[in-house]
Amino acid sequence: MLSPCLSINKDGHLAIGGMDVPALAREYKTPLYIMDEDYIRANCREYRAAMKKHYGDNFLVCYASKAFCTQYIYRILDDEQMGADVVSGGELYTAHKAGFPMDRIYFHGNNKTEDEIKLGLSLGIRRFVVDNLEELELINELSTKNGKITDISFRIKPGVDAHTHDFIKTGNIDSKFGVALENGEAMEIIEIASKMTGVRVVGLHCHIGSQIFDNEPFEHTAEVMMEFLNCVREKLGITITELNLGGGFGVSYVESDDPKTIDTTVKLFTDALRAKAGKLSFPLPFLVIEPGRSLVGNAGITVYTVGSVKEIKDVRTYVSIDGGMTDNPRFALYQAEYTICAPEKMNEEKSECITLAGRSCESGDLIGKDLMLQKVSRGDLVAVFTTGAYNYSMSSNYNRVPRAPVVMVSKGESKLIVRRETYEDILKNDICE
Amino acid sequence: MLSPCLSINKDGHLAIGGMDVPALAREYKTPLYIMDEDYIRANCREYRAAMKKHYGDNFLVCYASKAFCTQYIYRILDDEQMGADVVSGGELYTAHKAGFPMDRIYFHGNNKTEDEIKLGLSLGIRRFVVDNLEELELINELSTKNGKITDISFRIKPGVDAHTHDFIKTGNIDSKFGVALENGEAMEIIEIASKMTGVRVVGLHCHIGSQIFDNEPFEHTAEVMMEFLNCVREKLGITITELNLGGGFGVSYVESDDPKTIDTTVKLFTDALRAKAGKLSFPLPFLVIEPGRSLVGNAGITVYTVGSVKEIKDVRTYVSIDGGMTDNPRFALYQAEYTICAPEKMNEEKSECITLAGRSCESGDLIGKDLMLQKVSRGDLVAVFTTGAYNYSMSSNYNRVPRAPVVMVSKGESKLIVRRETYEDILKNDICE
Repeated sequence: MLSPCLSINKDGHLAIGGMDVPALAREYKTPLYIMDEDYIRANCREYRAAMKKHYGDNFLVCYASKAFCTQYIYRILDDEQMGADVVSGGELYTAHKAGFPMDRIYFHGNNKTEDEIKLGLSLGIRRFVVDNLEELELINELSTKNGKITDISFRIKPGVDAHTHDFIKTGNIDSKFGVALENGEAMEIIEIASKMTGVRVVGLHCHIGSQIFDNEPFEHTAEVMMEFLNCVREKLGITITELNLGGGFGVSYVESDDPKTIDTTVKLFTDALRAKAGKLSFPLPFLVIEPGRSLVGNAGITVYTVGSVKEIKDVRTYVSIDGGMTDNPRFALYQAEYTICAPEKMNEEKSECITLAGRSCESGDLIGKDLMLQKVSRGDLVAVFTTGAYNYSMSSNYNRVPRAPVVMVSKGESKLIVRRETYEDILKNDICE
Repeated sequence: MLSPCLSINKDGHLAIGGMDVPALAREYKTPLYIMDEDYIRANCREYRAAMKKHYGDNFLVCYASKAFCTQYIYRILDDEQMGADVVSGGELYTAHKAGFPMDRIYFHGNNKTEDEIKLGLSLGIRRFVVDNLEELELINELSTKNGKITDISFRIKPGVDAHTHDFIKTGNIDSKFGVALENGEAMEIIEIASKMTGVRVVGLHCHIGSQIFDNEPFEHTAEVMMEFLNCVREKLGITITELNLGGGFGVSYVESDDPKTIDTTVKLFTDALRAKAGKLSFPLPFLVIEPGRSLVGNAGITVYTVGSVKEIKDVRTYVSIDGGMTDNPRFALYQAEYTICAPEKMNEEKSECITLAGRSCESGDLIGKDLMLQKVSRGDLVAVFTTGAYNYSMSSNYNRVPRAPVVMVSKGESKLIVRRETYEDILKNDICE
């Protein structure tokens, strides 16, 4: 099993958080997202414990909302003393409506609109992570107009590029996000900000990529950023007190994925940070990290019902399900890999090599090619693992397919946290007069 | 200009259907989809006129709803005596709510659910295009139970593979859609259906691909399908009276795209069909075609506002806009190409080579790389052409970004046909207790 929240029960069925998946599918119908609340909470605690153990109390673990954003998740995060990062007015509004404390919100994004910035200012969020000069000028202008000084961070491209096992120090200057270290942009924008009356630079932020299994890039990034903090102090006389190292911690989609433990990863980059700070006699900054996928990805599965099995001799076997790219576009977007199973047949062998096809009228609408699965036929269930992140949040109404509901399980109980969309929901904004 | 509905007006602004795009952007805000109703109607008429001219009265032109599906489009289609194909209960429900005649609806899809089939049967749609054996059995069972005989078509893989300029006769047996000719599946399922008491096989359907510029595959498909109709008559004694050749007619996204005229294309495949039918002494079937993209694609544009221009020396210039993959995922999905412009600066030269970046927190969120554009800065508008198809219909709330509204222009007037989503709309199905 890819995730500790999955198991096989006495009936030979898949269970999540100890609850029978076929029974949940019967109760809530398919397609259905199921997530394990207790496992999400355990992940939050593991991150916080690792930070405390290796860095002390001067930190905040922020959940990257874009991985999975609904009101309910912010209740969990608040309970667990987490912060949250948001990338839009919509995510901010969701957190706000859920009653999440605004002083634990970081606002990211390469193109925040004026309305979004005003919303963030009026709700009193903890930090704008400023991406570019135009945004800096706008925040300064709005703050000055209101006679306020807004504390800000900057999104920095540290020049560390981390793709799974690659480790490339150049190249990612070619990104739409933030300002680069290597060509002086970063120093320049901090200097500009330091002369403004409506903002105060208190933090730096960076984010080197997604789904990273190798710890070395995190370690290296911590060192690069600490050196840059020191450069800013030397060049501009500004001591920046907050460092946000972003996220990108990988999770397992298939057996061959091999993420490090949270404790190992946190120890490595905090050690690197402390060593570098010591060497430079730089005060240890307030440290922020932003895991998203690694908090919720492996806490979720999607359950579908098989509609047809098409065995094309000497070619391929297509298993068609009642969802697809509308609830999980990650194969269509990235040829992402997944692990699947037949939840009612967990004691049977995965004897079939099949292609799991979605229901949308698009040949690219697949969940995966050449996946191993138990033998199934019309009416059987199929579950896809590791769909807690970037599935519900990326879902669409393509083909006017209603979006699937989300059920959270905890301590032997299930509850609906996102209702299934209706046809009327989809038509809600149509005007036809 | 890529589309006849676009022009430059006396103020040097982009106009669609003669209406000033910057003025529409001010009125409705951005991001904004704008479509030209008169041009959509002209396209419908051109298809119908070509079919009438080259084939007589025995035809129906069906709009492929998945290209762009809202209630309003069905009013246009009904006025223009068009049929429509739907691929889900959601599209069917939309057409129904708009008052579209159900006896002009074709229901496609590789995995229709039982609820969807029941909805189609109860609404009395014209035709189920049956994809597979499981679906055939279900329709037969439901029809028999209600003492009815349902006329059906089958989705056939004709073995003609058409990718732009490729022309490959084998290979597309490897598709999730339908039953293949070449391995006998198609004949077999027709034979099975012919012995059922709840269904009657009256039609065959095929669809060879999308965005096809070459006419030869259409011509060849017409011949292959006509030969198969004759085989069915010879082998099973069944004279199938309806042939649906699907769609796939290309439109221009960039200058180098070179679609044939509708008249030319229709003449070619109807001539081929007639010649083959004559040779085989087969009665000319009722002919259905299903254009989607070619009816609406070039009738639509998307208008954005620039948030930041990031000129990274010797690397790339990123222009960030207030939309992106949430309203147009086609670059992220297919690396689709687009033509863009600055609607307020149409008389200026496109002097800049830029990358148009969306606002979502994802490096793949681009509209296009290395596109030519007039010099722009924060607050300027950017328009993307040919977004009438597979943009609104594929839009999502990723990053909880509200979906953009759709405005239809006609005869010098504009009207909203899809409202802008609100944050409350996005939260509507969240449960947080």
